[in-house]
Amino acid sequence: MDAIGIERGADEPRLLELPRPEPAPEEALVRTLRVGVDGTDHEVIAGNHGGPPDGEDHLVLGHEAVGVVEDPGGTDLGAGDVVVPTVRRPPADGPNEYFERGEADMAPPEATLERGIDGAHGFMSEYFASPEEYLVAVPPELASLGFLVEPVSISEKALELAAAARSSFDWRPETVLVLGNGALGLLTVAMLVDDADVYCLGRRDRPDPTIDIIERLGATYVDSRETPVSAVPEVHEPADLVYEATGHARHAFESIEALAPGGVAALLGVPDPWTFEVDGGRLHEELVLENKALVGSVNSGVRHFEAAVDRLRELPGWFPESFVTEVAPYRSFEPAFRSGPTSIKSAVEFARYEER
Amino acid sequence: MDAIGIERGADEPRLLELPRPEPAPEEALVRTLRVGVDGTDHEVIAGNHGGPPDGEDHLVLGHEAVGVVEDPGGTDLGAGDVVVPTVRRPPADGPNEYFERGEADMAPPEATLERGIDGAHGFMSEYFASPEEYLVAVPPELASLGFLVEPVSISEKALELAAAARSSFDWRPETVLVLGNGALGLLTVAMLVDDADVYCLGRRDRPDPTIDIIERLGATYVDSRETPVSAVPEVHEPADLVYEATGHARHAFESIEALAPGGVAALLGVPDPWTFEVDGGRLHEELVLENKALVGSVNSGVRHFEAAVDRLRELPGWFPESFVTEVAPYRSFEPAFRSGPTSIKSAVEFARYEER
Repeated sequence: MDAIGIERGADEPRLLELPRPEPAPEEALVRTLRVGVDGTDHEVIAGNHGGPPDGEDHLVLGHEAVGVVEDPGGTDLGAGDVVVPTVRRPPADGPNEYFERGEADMAPPEATLERGIDGAHGFMSEYFASPEEYLVAVPPELASLGFLVEPVSISEKALELAAAARSSFDWRPETVLVLGNGALGLLTVAMLVDDADVYCLGRRDRPDPTIDIIERLGATYVDSRETPVSAVPEVHEPADLVYEATGHARHAFESIEALAPGGVAALLGVPDPWTFEVDGGRLHEELVLENKALVGSVNSGVRHFEAAVDRLRELPGWFPESFVTEVAPYRSFEPAFRSGPTSIKSAVEFARYEER
Repeated sequence: MDAIGIERGADEPRLLELPRPEPAPEEALVRTLRVGVDGTDHEVIAGNHGGPPDGEDHLVLGHEAVGVVEDPGGTDLGAGDVVVPTVRRPPADGPNEYFERGEADMAPPEATLERGIDGAHGFMSEYFASPEEYLVAVPPELASLGFLVEPVSISEKALELAAAARSSFDWRPETVLVLGNGALGLLTVAMLVDDADVYCLGRRDRPDPTIDIIERLGATYVDSRETPVSAVPEVHEPADLVYEATGHARHAFESIEALAPGGVAALLGVPDPWTFEVDGGRLHEELVLENKALVGSVNSGVRHFEAAVDRLRELPGWFPESFVTEVAPYRSFEPAFRSGPTSIKSAVEFARYEER
């Protein structure tokens, strides 16, 4: 079968000819429909993150997938079911406590593999195999947009951790500041804008399609070149919730200053080492005297995928049309990996969904 | 009546002659038994924090009190009930949303007064008056140690916030690192040592009474001059919970490195501004990839006082005897405000409890 992968030492993905996977007895065989591309894929391609399985010279890319069950094997799934796979799998030495508890998303990096990212092949192939516990059923009407379930689930988990961190008192996030107008930032704006005043920070000039989406959603665009994170409370409002999806390490610290009393910042970026000065005394004092919190969040679990399915169905119809700017057929996948001033979210298509 | 207060511009407390408070109709009059002294009192005395009520030239000190109801007034309390007062009171413009929700402890500094600290007289006087909602009944056997309810409640709240922050997954704090072997640090070690492996970090040489207490409790003393916070995971164990009570701003950041995956650091110190370098990229990455959290916590509410009462009753009998190193009669209160190599926790005594 055909697959899109990155070979050890290469700097761009290419089409690979691989054997169709042979599912284990407890695995289903899934025919891939679409697979999204995100910043992590670009990190993997650049060789800055993850890599091939031990002993192999290539990694099949892709961790944001939707597919159709081709052969349920020994699972309780049905042929034709539309499914989305989760990303983490047990490491070579077998399931550890995190997997045994169904909380692989809480595992530290060394205690997990990640399909399409680190040590396990991804889903950018005509077929993939997976145990049922790592497949989340989605309604057929999400067959085309199901590749967004994984990124939305990332936000679901971060928002769950943030809300939990404020669950011992009366916390109602009326004002949200989303840092970053990339795909994850925009998805999160769309998820939250019905229930809060949402500000979304970026550094782009108008006209810009992400600013158009932010404003059409009813949120307010904040240009970080005019209004840095720490100035948001003064220029706009302090935020009950900050959602950081820029990977800009200063934002993790500046978010403390952007928070309202009792606020929480959910951090999702994965920056490189970077030493800089902070007024650590003032930030520490502000965390304490205003009961503020920071929570880091990575990956997501089955319940976050399930919540993401519900959330995706609630998004306005125009949103995915504006947000998904490229769906490339897998034989000419290259445009899905290019970014330009008008590109937001792209995917590779392996097959069209056909109702059975 | 006699009171211990600090006059505007003075640098040490003195005995003041003040009128006995006239309780409002809904207030009880309380005869003070004992009032503890802590670091905040020293900050107030030094003029670095808080100050007298508006328009007054002195502040009655003391926020860690226990007393006996002298006159219940219009409250449902009974004469002779042993009570502990909470610290925060509505500001001059009346109760705000935090007080209306019964969550004064979540108010930012500008939305509250603090008795004995900032803008409202404290409890270091022969009598004080208080509405019933700010008085927590304690059993008579806590009449002598009831001044420890307030500091224990501070930890109860911080631990509640920390546990809440981890409540969306299976978190069991098996290893705890307490930063600081002052009174609050030692109390917290005593609170947690039955349920976790507890390490307590300080910078004192043996022989030292705080190290003796740490070890008698069954915890491990960590000398920060030999083992800095960031080295604790390597030398000992990573901590599921870090409890910071040093006010050393670097500790707020280093605690991220001391945490186990999924861990949380509760920050309680109130440092001065201090700019220093951090590897913000690495700390940010570590928060995210290991799902770590930081929660700031200040003050405490009625439910934390109630939890503190239960907690105090569970402490081993020898602990308060070693921990409370000075109880000075109020007419010669000075030793309670002095610190020396053998002093840990001190209090001022205004009256002995007599069962009615």
